[in-house]
Amino acid sequence: MVAEIVSIGTELLLGELIDTNSAWLSGELRDRGVFVFFKDTVGDNRNRIRDTILRALERSDLILLSGGLGPTDDDLTREGIADAVGETPREDPRLLEELRKMFSSRERTMSETNRKQIWVIPSAEPLDNPIGTAWGWFVKHSGKIIVAMPGPPIEMKRMWREQVLQRLSFGQYGFWHTTVHTLGIGESNVGEILAEFTDLKNPSVATYARRHGVDVRVAASSGSLDDALKLAEPTLCKVERLLAKFIWGHDEDTIGAVLGKILKERGEMVAVAESVTGGLVADSLTDCPGSSGWFLGGFVAYSNGAKRLAGVRAEAIERYGVVSEGVALSLAKGVRRKLGADWGLATTGVAGPEPLAGQPVGLAFVAIAGPQGTWVRKLSWPGERRQVKERVSNWLLMLFLRALKGELE
Amino acid sequence: MVAEIVSIGTELLLGELIDTNSAWLSGELRDRGVFVFFKDTVGDNRNRIRDTILRALERSDLILLSGGLGPTDDDLTREGIADAVGETPREDPRLLEELRKMFSSRERTMSETNRKQIWVIPSAEPLDNPIGTAWGWFVKHSGKIIVAMPGPPIEMKRMWREQVLQRLSFGQYGFWHTTVHTLGIGESNVGEILAEFTDLKNPSVATYARRHGVDVRVAASSGSLDDALKLAEPTLCKVERLLAKFIWGHDEDTIGAVLGKILKERGEMVAVAESVTGGLVADSLTDCPGSSGWFLGGFVAYSNGAKRLAGVRAEAIERYGVVSEGVALSLAKGVRRKLGADWGLATTGVAGPEPLAGQPVGLAFVAIAGPQGTWVRKLSWPGERRQVKERVSNWLLMLFLRALKGELE
Repeated sequence: MVAEIVSIGTELLLGELIDTNSAWLSGELRDRGVFVFFKDTVGDNRNRIRDTILRALERSDLILLSGGLGPTDDDLTREGIADAVGETPREDPRLLEELRKMFSSRERTMSETNRKQIWVIPSAEPLDNPIGTAWGWFVKHSGKIIVAMPGPPIEMKRMWREQVLQRLSFGQYGFWHTTVHTLGIGESNVGEILAEFTDLKNPSVATYARRHGVDVRVAASSGSLDDALKLAEPTLCKVERLLAKFIWGHDEDTIGAVLGKILKERGEMVAVAESVTGGLVADSLTDCPGSSGWFLGGFVAYSNGAKRLAGVRAEAIERYGVVSEGVALSLAKGVRRKLGADWGLATTGVAGPEPLAGQPVGLAFVAIAGPQGTWVRKLSWPGERRQVKERVSNWLLMLFLRALKGELE
Repeated sequence: MVAEIVSIGTELLLGELIDTNSAWLSGELRDRGVFVFFKDTVGDNRNRIRDTILRALERSDLILLSGGLGPTDDDLTREGIADAVGETPREDPRLLEELRKMFSSRERTMSETNRKQIWVIPSAEPLDNPIGTAWGWFVKHSGKIIVAMPGPPIEMKRMWREQVLQRLSFGQYGFWHTTVHTLGIGESNVGEILAEFTDLKNPSVATYARRHGVDVRVAASSGSLDDALKLAEPTLCKVERLLAKFIWGHDEDTIGAVLGKILKERGEMVAVAESVTGGLVADSLTDCPGSSGWFLGGFVAYSNGAKRLAGVRAEAIERYGVVSEGVALSLAKGVRRKLGADWGLATTGVAGPEPLAGQPVGLAFVAIAGPQGTWVRKLSWPGERRQVKERVSNWLLMLFLRALKGELE
């Protein structure tokens, strides 16, 4: 099967938005053995959308569209598909009912323009969107398939997973892959350590520098998923052994979810006191469903007053300075005690853009106070403000993972 | 002039790399008044590259290619262009000389495969690349122009600025645009309010749904930037008047930065106590450089124990329930008092995926305690966990902006 991905929206042609949907869909298709030879981007123009679909129908079996399903006059994907297949859209009374309910449950009034979102054509089956007002379309046309999904990535991904996949069949093909997430080692070092693997074709080993660390992807294809897994396994095992102490998770894992799983199993609770990360550590922990089962909360100890509330004595700040081992430790111990947690985590440092109290941008201390002792580590890695916050947060959580596993000395 | 942007590389079709070049080039063209109707992505396949170029020559005047200029067998952009214009590539002796020098200056040996990087065709002028071994091509063919640039963004951007721009002429042209950020109103409602403007061509008015609210972009083009601004101004003024109470900023603004500016001017400080948003409000405020000048910190009041630390009485939780107006207000007043802030902000609610204490996912209360009084608002908007957190956070900050401006009753 050959697929073609079409991204729709004038903002994409004006450079105001970077298209991430098409890369994500490409990965989904690759994993199922579907070839993608072309991707196209077209603006909110009815005739050009039609022409792009007609061209794609000439050379591809499956056409995945995203964007242009909003309620306004310049959302023209429905019209473009209808023109390409020669049909006329009509309102679907069942969808109108659902749309009305959706608006009333949100206590907002439905606008007349929303009514174009309930259009369908005879060859289209509407695809539910539980988190938005734009239904998708699944269109069968002369042996080919056209799928229209909303542009917002969160809506598109959910519709793909819950509505589109079950309607497609990809035939006998086994592609197995996993992505190993590491932290605390650079991409070139990973490359050196894995040098013997990077020329392999099947299984294949590839490294990618990401914001949350370096990812290593091990993949293999064969006649079935089982065979592909068997082919990949020995290589994956060697890769994981070589990188063991830097690995924090796989695939959809987040560091927070990995930590939460361990804490939940042990029945332990964690609390945080953040200065330099300003809430980011807590935010990433509370992104995990069920986090209230292992996360108590804590302090955003930004000002000195807030640090004192978290249990740091004024003399400690005076003696060591705000950005210091002493203050980091004191925050970790303080939040552990004040919230009655098993573990207290803390950060202090300089996010920039200006140096702070004579300390350079990127300098930070992270501390952990646990049932068996305390740890504190220094980090020095200049960067932009958001980068510094993310690195310090990730570093602390990686350190906490190692502490939970008993690997920290 | 109509341009078309073509990104070349199989990794783009496998989803292993997100294409940022085409968005960047789109912005460059937009600012010079060049229309882009289509963008294409094609893999490292000689015939498909040729076909894509031939198709682009039918409908566009200027074709910008990036990628596929490396030294390996699967770098086929040169071959694709040569096939499309019907010419044969030959080595350029001058470039061979330069390439040899480049390698010897880096104390590296030139590989034979690098020799394809010095190919040219009769209608191509080579474009220097001071930071790589891939020359670009500037091709004139039957009144149209094809430009080939390297794939790495840093090389592509430099070649565009230093080599390509001087060879193109865009004529007298001024393009002015601004993006107005709103929050608290849906895209379809914005569409209705702005109905009289959405059919305008120049100036143009377009709406986009974003994670931080609905954006409205007003743009105009004319013979000079000044004239374009004059053309856009009356429309911009009307748009801003119609949406006034929903607007929180323009262009590169973030809500945090807008709030910070006002607080700093007044010398007022804010503190936050977050339950449902779990640190996100603090995280977004502390993303702003200089936030320590107006943000004190606060509590991540996730557990009931943490809520009590933030000043909520146990009886209040028992009487009203955790997700209630009473607890939201109590958190806002508590954090204001405990940190000695001018303003206290608070959130409580149900992020999901499970209901909490009998309350549905998406239900939330946000509260503000200020020098002149308190406000509390209910929000009910189901969604995924991260969506709920972002909406509640944005909603609270928008409400706070209105409170600062004295617009809240």
